[in-house]
Amino acid sequence: MDILFSNVTVVTMDEAMHVHYAAFVGVTDGKISWIDKTAPAEKPKQIINGEGMVLMPGLINCQTHLPMSLLRGYADGHDLHTWLNDYIFPREAKLDDRAVKAATLLSIAECLRFGTTSVSDMYDHCQAIAEAVAETGIKANLARGATLFTEDFDFETYPACRELRQLREQWDGYDNGRIKVEASVHAEYTSNYRLWDALGEYALNEGLGMHVHLSETEKEHEACKEKYGLTPAQLLDCHHVFDSRALAAHCVWLEPEDMRLLAKRKVTAVHCPVSNLKLASGKADVIAMVKAGMNVALGTDGASSNNELDLFEEIKLASLLAKDVQGGASALPPQAALMMATVCGAKAQGREKECGMIKQGMDADLILLDFTSPHLIPCHNVHSQLAYAASGHDVIMTMVRGQILYAGGEFPTIDLKAVMQELSEHGIPRVFSSDPIDEKD
Amino acid sequence: MDILFSNVTVVTMDEAMHVHYAAFVGVTDGKISWIDKTAPAEKPKQIINGEGMVLMPGLINCQTHLPMSLLRGYADGHDLHTWLNDYIFPREAKLDDRAVKAATLLSIAECLRFGTTSVSDMYDHCQAIAEAVAETGIKANLARGATLFTEDFDFETYPACRELRQLREQWDGYDNGRIKVEASVHAEYTSNYRLWDALGEYALNEGLGMHVHLSETEKEHEACKEKYGLTPAQLLDCHHVFDSRALAAHCVWLEPEDMRLLAKRKVTAVHCPVSNLKLASGKADVIAMVKAGMNVALGTDGASSNNELDLFEEIKLASLLAKDVQGGASALPPQAALMMATVCGAKAQGREKECGMIKQGMDADLILLDFTSPHLIPCHNVHSQLAYAASGHDVIMTMVRGQILYAGGEFPTIDLKAVMQELSEHGIPRVFSSDPIDEKD
Repeated sequence: MDILFSNVTVVTMDEAMHVHYAAFVGVTDGKISWIDKTAPAEKPKQIINGEGMVLMPGLINCQTHLPMSLLRGYADGHDLHTWLNDYIFPREAKLDDRAVKAATLLSIAECLRFGTTSVSDMYDHCQAIAEAVAETGIKANLARGATLFTEDFDFETYPACRELRQLREQWDGYDNGRIKVEASVHAEYTSNYRLWDALGEYALNEGLGMHVHLSETEKEHEACKEKYGLTPAQLLDCHHVFDSRALAAHCVWLEPEDMRLLAKRKVTAVHCPVSNLKLASGKADVIAMVKAGMNVALGTDGASSNNELDLFEEIKLASLLAKDVQGGASALPPQAALMMATVCGAKAQGREKECGMIKQGMDADLILLDFTSPHLIPCHNVHSQLAYAASGHDVIMTMVRGQILYAGGEFPTIDLKAVMQELSEHGIPRVFSSDPIDEKD
Repeated sequence: MDILFSNVTVVTMDEAMHVHYAAFVGVTDGKISWIDKTAPAEKPKQIINGEGMVLMPGLINCQTHLPMSLLRGYADGHDLHTWLNDYIFPREAKLDDRAVKAATLLSIAECLRFGTTSVSDMYDHCQAIAEAVAETGIKANLARGATLFTEDFDFETYPACRELRQLREQWDGYDNGRIKVEASVHAEYTSNYRLWDALGEYALNEGLGMHVHLSETEKEHEACKEKYGLTPAQLLDCHHVFDSRALAAHCVWLEPEDMRLLAKRKVTAVHCPVSNLKLASGKADVIAMVKAGMNVALGTDGASSNNELDLFEEIKLASLLAKDVQGGASALPPQAALMMATVCGAKAQGREKECGMIKQGMDADLILLDFTSPHLIPCHNVHSQLAYAASGHDVIMTMVRGQILYAGGEFPTIDLKAVMQELSEHGIPRVFSSDPIDEKD
């Protein structure tokens, strides 16, 4: 046994939502090998005293654009379409692989620090992103978000599709499946049927997942209906986009029929409540999606529309907003919101057999939270405490496959100083700039 | 000069919203005595290196029930009225002064840790609360929340009113105004006109502020209209409740005429977005209140309906929810949300001349945030970063009147171990209980 957590409160997130108090959890060869109220006879190489701590499965963030940390706080205050077209897309066009890799490393550090052990990322420059993921030890499903604005399209030569194929060849299944590659249609409104058909078919044939933005704003949802006579969900479904395991981010404006259709196709809705409010896109009706039979996971979205990557915030806000949309204080209770960030996320990523729960034989993707701070005392209910009072800042250790990737302020696999140095060459603004005094913000 | 912050980014929250980079802020005899781009000639007793840090005014939490940390996570999932009547009121009836004092100390530690330097609190057992405030060094406006369910009432002998008078005599103006005592009608639906008239008159005559819960739920708002033909705001106004500087918590169901009336009476609305969502009370229309001319401050409400006291969360959620209610991404920008937590809070407390800004001559109620963590890099805009990406967890030092009350995990004025010991005698549940394994939560 490599590591033993002793006397720890274990929030298993298993089917029965067991919580074990003063328990022992062992890790051997990257897997969970022991869960009991007593210590094993075998002496572990390392013991981590879990008194006053909560051990739970690492969180799964199903909607990220990791390199967008570079644009954190850039051009706030605009709706999605203005923000994308007038600010983000032009700024992103100037990014190169080096900047993307450094920004990805920065975001991965933030994810690990806040207890996220696996992400589903959609972006460009995926080679650089994959390198960062590979080096740091986090799990990731990586998608090259493809757009297509012309009628002229050839799957073999179109850059985004060529990059997807290269990504798949080089990285899909890397490190025994730590990296998975997925196909991605960026969104209905940024592409057309030629891309949808081609990527849908490719994903199905190659056994890849699919990652899309779906019905994020009313404007895009209604424009699609106007143009095609179908909702984005119906339209993309006709063009094979949901033939594989798919992940649809946002789903703010889904109609009841869309929810039934997507449930039938086993599409996961990725709820991004902070980003949706910040960009004034609206609020997804999570309860209706769950009732329709959809799997619902959580995502922060990129750091530039959040403006951070603490998934505990999405857990709390998802639970709070559900009470508003459906108007009942018992809507989406803590346990359900925590499931969305763990087991439902694992399912969305096709990783439900490997992580999302603390269960013998599963990967040791674990996080430890310090429950001895004033804001976590008393603890009448540990699920409630995790959902409503805890924060990613309470995470003191993050482990993926038994490897500690964050502990006590340190990131053993990330050289943050080098990352900062790299970013500074891209004009990264810091608060300790020597800008002249009296400069107005 | 006692303390000098050097090379720090200063978010002044002054009228022009100045931000000073690489600046120097000095503290002398509890007051801010220096703000400049150069260091003073005088050598300070202590220098705090502010490189990579943001210095801003301490936050002002205008709606707390400090002892309710004892009920954090107790009976989640109910609407306000069920929660209060079936769970909270019966549980509170069992509290004594010792439990209240210990729970208040715990909450004050949490407030200080998250950067709050002043609170407006309404509760019972106020003598115990005042003692805790006095010992710890935080600022507080304290109100004995009064209810009255009978017709039988005599101001001289009614316990809540007698306690208010005692509180006023012993504590109002304590430590040169660090404690202020306010009158309080708990809410329209928990009292009647005899109490309103008496407390309204007393507050006016004695120069006290007034603290009430107002139109928190649709049920209470409509029931009042049904019973009296007036909204709660109109009714309480007729009975002199708003004759003094008043603070109305929640204001979720105010009507446009209520907002105009309360603006005229200079009543501050205390917006508590987390609590209002969690208890399924709804969302206050902050933008409409501001447009009507009302002062709007922020509050966490008690820890049991939040479930913590990090006012940075209210700043972010207030800004996000405003975009939803009014449907625009530019609604309630970061600067406005930060104002609500500082200058508007100071005004609500009658402390606008002493705190809420970093300005020469004001009290040194200051907080320092570490902006070198991955989630706060880069920093395109410091106000945006504070509102959307920072958290109370990023606070590394909290100072009231020049006295450091929290720094680096330590609380110089609070013996947390003794607090825990005291609470344990009241059956405080902790995660490291030795409850049997497999107990379901």
